[in-house]
Amino acid sequence: MAEDTLYDIVVHNGIVLTVNGEFDVFRKGLVCIADGTLKRVEDRANSEPLPAASQVIDAAGGIIMPGLVNSHTHVPMSLFRGLADDLPLTDWLNDHIFKAETQWLNPESVHVGTLLSCAEMLLSGTTTFCDGYFFEDAVAAAVIESGMRAVLAQGIIDFPAPGVPDPQENVTKAAQFIETWQGKSTLITPGLFCHSPYTCSEETLRKARKVADEKDTLFQIHVAETKGELREIEERHGTTPVQYLDRIGILNERTLLVHAIWVNDADIACMAERYVSISVATESEMKLASGVAPIPEFLENGLSVGIGTDSCASNNNLDMFQEIDTSAKLHKVKRGDPTVMDARQVLTLATRGGAEAIGLGEQVGSLEVGKKADLIIIDTHKPHLTPLYDPVSHLVYAASGSDVRDVIIDGRLTVKDRMVLSFNLEPIIESVQDLARQIAS
Amino acid sequence: MAEDTLYDIVVHNGIVLTVNGEFDVFRKGLVCIADGTLKRVEDRANSEPLPAASQVIDAAGGIIMPGLVNSHTHVPMSLFRGLADDLPLTDWLNDHIFKAETQWLNPESVHVGTLLSCAEMLLSGTTTFCDGYFFEDAVAAAVIESGMRAVLAQGIIDFPAPGVPDPQENVTKAAQFIETWQGKSTLITPGLFCHSPYTCSEETLRKARKVADEKDTLFQIHVAETKGELREIEERHGTTPVQYLDRIGILNERTLLVHAIWVNDADIACMAERYVSISVATESEMKLASGVAPIPEFLENGLSVGIGTDSCASNNNLDMFQEIDTSAKLHKVKRGDPTVMDARQVLTLATRGGAEAIGLGEQVGSLEVGKKADLIIIDTHKPHLTPLYDPVSHLVYAASGSDVRDVIIDGRLTVKDRMVLSFNLEPIIESVQDLARQIAS
Repeated sequence: MAEDTLYDIVVHNGIVLTVNGEFDVFRKGLVCIADGTLKRVEDRANSEPLPAASQVIDAAGGIIMPGLVNSHTHVPMSLFRGLADDLPLTDWLNDHIFKAETQWLNPESVHVGTLLSCAEMLLSGTTTFCDGYFFEDAVAAAVIESGMRAVLAQGIIDFPAPGVPDPQENVTKAAQFIETWQGKSTLITPGLFCHSPYTCSEETLRKARKVADEKDTLFQIHVAETKGELREIEERHGTTPVQYLDRIGILNERTLLVHAIWVNDADIACMAERYVSISVATESEMKLASGVAPIPEFLENGLSVGIGTDSCASNNNLDMFQEIDTSAKLHKVKRGDPTVMDARQVLTLATRGGAEAIGLGEQVGSLEVGKKADLIIIDTHKPHLTPLYDPVSHLVYAASGSDVRDVIIDGRLTVKDRMVLSFNLEPIIESVQDLARQIAS
Repeated sequence: MAEDTLYDIVVHNGIVLTVNGEFDVFRKGLVCIADGTLKRVEDRANSEPLPAASQVIDAAGGIIMPGLVNSHTHVPMSLFRGLADDLPLTDWLNDHIFKAETQWLNPESVHVGTLLSCAEMLLSGTTTFCDGYFFEDAVAAAVIESGMRAVLAQGIIDFPAPGVPDPQENVTKAAQFIETWQGKSTLITPGLFCHSPYTCSEETLRKARKVADEKDTLFQIHVAETKGELREIEERHGTTPVQYLDRIGILNERTLLVHAIWVNDADIACMAERYVSISVATESEMKLASGVAPIPEFLENGLSVGIGTDSCASNNNLDMFQEIDTSAKLHKVKRGDPTVMDARQVLTLATRGGAEAIGLGEQVGSLEVGKKADLIIIDTHKPHLTPLYDPVSHLVYAASGSDVRDVIIDGRLTVKDRMVLSFNLEPIIESVQDLARQIAS
């Protein structure tokens, strides 16, 4: 840009972590934004005056980094946060979650549940997420209101589901969702979500794959989540969940396998051959005792991996900082090797890696000129972030979501000094509290 | 107390979690404090006016609970937070931590490092901690300044150590520390800390045990932390670390075994027979890939267990809320059973259990009439704590230290609206930053 350019936003006086391929760090960082895009990301020369901008943001010596990418959510489920815990997965799902979903989900409750989750994600540094649920049109409308970026999908399952009483229509409804939202907003990328290989028939999966291919969208599916699923698929289909999906033509480079815990070497080889991506939700998988997905093995096989929180009914928050901390530590102790999943690698999974896994790698996930202006500022002037030898270490091992001060998405300031600017949070909290009183009683 | 009593502090308008033996919860809770002690802990009757008090604190619908007890720390090591990560334990210790300690520790640096850690602990809801380190007199002075409660011990190791160049004097110096601080402050309970069975000789351990018995203080020791230690002790002494300590008469009911990861059934039976207590530091043990201490098995054998953070050189923060969340989840996934380590049990370990483990069970750890007035107030009016079905679930699975609003210790308000009142934090942060610049260069 010419020297007389007026930027929309200039951010300065902080350590810029680009999380680009070289993992460049600019200790006296400068980021210039115009038209929702990153125009300059660099070290500021000592004598250089600040470039002209409509808005100048002083990072106050903190950390300026890409917004976090949460690669697996069901955002309206914040309505059920803490409704039931410490139970076997099937009891938790059948006796509590499915019942609550059947009774309480509608476009209005999904709308407020989504905005509640968006507030939580914004205030903990997530700028992009990848979701699958029901009444997803209501999710999409709320996401636009929140100013967040998301890959969204209407869920497909072969049972009567909230908003889809006739399962015969599940793929059609999901296809309609894509048609409604494709190209409609720079913030929304529609996709497809089949619940799992044990709740969707081969016919449903094939039909959904065809739609995803025709529309060129991401195909998400929970797979190999529990030992029980592994056994069930082996009994029904004579092979593992991953290889069953491959046999019926589901796996390709626009596929996001969620969980992928109960996988063997042949499964991983198959996943690598098909160039699928994976989303791991460590804390939720630990809490439900599902198992530990072999992230280091996925990475060693060149697979694209994102980190997700899953819903806050099973986690029970959407704080990606806690998620990456726990992910790093879990694999160290599992392998008996403290060098596994180092801070830089884990931070990359939560930003650029996640963006690539959900198909937005060219748009977001790192601070590089030409990418969308999605960034967060971390306030490091706190006892638990003092002293500061290594910003990457702090972000993974010491910080939490509450250290996020400001959030910019698509060039727009959505959080300033920990206040959500994009929508009015207070009535949302009140609505959810009212609804929860009814659910509890 | 008579009806015309003027309390020092009255706290109301919150959910009181007593964490007493019955785990009583008062939804419309009232806590009255006088002379540093809890005088009333109950549900407030509908029509009852607030009791008269010098200070009335409105919990604004949040949670009022016992302050957290961190049962294992080395608080001055906040100076080295993030100095080195993702390394094998021996490289991390020998190449980084021991070197930094030798060069940079002195009473002044220990003083500021301690106050930094105290600020971090206060702001994340810890009111009592159990520490062992060097220059512990400087730690004690800083702890009194901070207004926190602590069991403190001068470390014993058979090498030249910071402040103890001649290891022949290690037990004598530790005994002097006890003499100096015993009975001096209601906040400080002195104890003894032998580093480990592989860094202290049998003679040192026996001498230290004798001092602890004579002074009637807690005897802390790191034990069975790594597989390497297990092998080393087995080679040297022909038995496990725990059984070696038992053989030489170290284990009794005033012993706190720290880590206790590499223990077998016979070790656990021995620990139960001797009524020792245990402190587990889950996150640090995960990060260093030391292993997983069998907390559920300890509890099944009736052992007293506390949760600690270890130092923030290996964790890398002192947030007990994150610690209990991770501890609960780790044992669920390790056992493949989501019912293990439920929220109530884990919260108890971090409060009453920890207090009992470090010998302060009669004073703190629960909100019961007659105990010390150590309590914290959690601000639940936040997206990630909305809605609120079950306060215990939220505290373990959704909250983090930054949700702590107010802290009272020994009847004194030490944190109000997230501001530390007991000392001036800003110069401490600046001093540590200055020191860190020297350490880094």
